[in-house]
Amino acid sequence: MENSKSSSQSSAPKIVVLRWGHRPQRDVRLTTHVALTARALCASGFILSDTLDIHIQGTLNKITQSWGGKFYFEMGTSWKKVVREWRTNGGVVVHLTAYGENIQTSDILDRIKKTNKDLLLIVGAQKVPGEFYSSEVSDFNISIGNQPHSECSALAIFLDRYFEGKELAKPFEKAKIEIVPKERGKEIKSNINFS
Amino acid sequence: MENSKSSSQSSAPKIVVLRWGHRPQRDVRLTTHVALTARALCASGFILSDTLDIHIQGTLNKITQSWGGKFYFEMGTSWKKVVREWRTNGGVVVHLTAYGENIQTSDILDRIKKTNKDLLLIVGAQKVPGEFYSSEVSDFNISIGNQPHSECSALAIFLDRYFEGKELAKPFEKAKIEIVPKERGKEIKSNINFS
Repeated sequence: MENSKSSSQSSAPKIVVLRWGHRPQRDVRLTTHVALTARALCASGFILSDTLDIHIQGTLNKITQSWGGKFYFEMGTSWKKVVREWRTNGGVVVHLTAYGENIQTSDILDRIKKTNKDLLLIVGAQKVPGEFYSSEVSDFNISIGNQPHSECSALAIFLDRYFEGKELAKPFEKAKIEIVPKERGKEIKSNINFS
Repeated sequence: MENSKSSSQSSAPKIVVLRWGHRPQRDVRLTTHVALTARALCASGFILSDTLDIHIQGTLNKITQSWGGKFYFEMGTSWKKVVREWRTNGGVVVHLTAYGENIQTSDILDRIKKTNKDLLLIVGAQKVPGEFYSSEVSDFNISIGNQPHSECSALAIFLDRYFEGKELAKPFEKAKIEIVPKERGKEIKSNINFS
C-alpha cells in the first residue's frame, strides 16, 4: 500500500479504491468494471479486501500491461488492516454510499479536497457493516445522489468531479496500444517497436 | 417511445438510453446497473433492444414504484426500428464508445447540447456492429476518455456532465421512500400515508 502524506507536500493527493464485500463468481464482472473505472479515471490502485479473485487480478494486470500507466492491484488484505494503516499514515477514508452527504447539494467534496490528503475510497458490493458509517472507519460518507443506482457509476462521478475532468485527458505512460479518438470508426495505434 | 421535438420548444431535451447486445443471464447485473444509472441520473427511459429480460424489467419497475419519478422501460424492440423512429421524429442519436471523440478533449458535448434535441444514447454490452459508428446510425460518437472501463461509468459521467450535476439534486415525484442524506448513519423516510 502506498503511504499517505502530509498536506505540506506539493504533489497531488492520490486515491486508492477499496472494494469491500466482493463475492467471487457472483460479483466478478461488476467488480472488474469498478476496478477498470478506478484505473481509467486515474485512481492509483485498487484493493480487493478480505478475498481473492485471480480473474480480476488477471484482467487488471493484462489491461495495465497493454494500455499503460501505473496501477497497483492488491487483494486478500483485511479491510480493517487497510483502514488502520491508511489512517496511521495520515490518509483520509471516504465511504461512497447512497446514504451519505450528497455531492451535489452539500459542500462535502470541497471539504474532502481541502484535507489535501491521500484518499482511501471504500466501495461496497453488498450491504456494508454499520461501522463503515462511523468515525471509527470513515472520515466522510459521500453519496452520488440519493437514489439507488450503481457503485460503478458512483465511483466514476466521484473521480470525474474530484479530478475536475482532467483524468479523461491524461496520457497513460508506456502504453503498448492506445485509441485515437475519432468522429467515425475505430482506430487503435500500436506503440510496439518491432525493430 | 416518446417523441423527439424541434428546437423551437422550450422544455429541456430528453435522454433515452438504448442498451444493445444484452445477453440474458450473463449481463443481467451489469445491464440492471446501466438501467438504474439511467433512472437515477434523470434519463427519461431505457430500451433493452432486440431481447427480453423480465428480471431487469421487474427490478426497474419495483425501484420506480418505491423511489418515485417517471421512468419508462421498454424491451424487445429492434434497435433498427428504434433508431429509425427516433430520427424520423427529429431526435439525435449518440453512440457511447471508447473510440469516439473524447468528452474532455473535444467540443463534442457542446455540439450535442447545441442540437437542443432529444437524445437516444446507445450503450453497447459487447462488440457493436460497425454501422453504429456510421452516420447511418449515429449523429455523434462520444468517448468518456479513451481507456477501457465500463459502459456503466461512461453513461454516468455523460449524464452528469450533460445535466451539469443538477440531476443529482432533483427530487423524484411520488416517491414512497427516500433517503435523508446524512454525515453519519442511514436514514430512510417513508412517505406512505397509512391513514
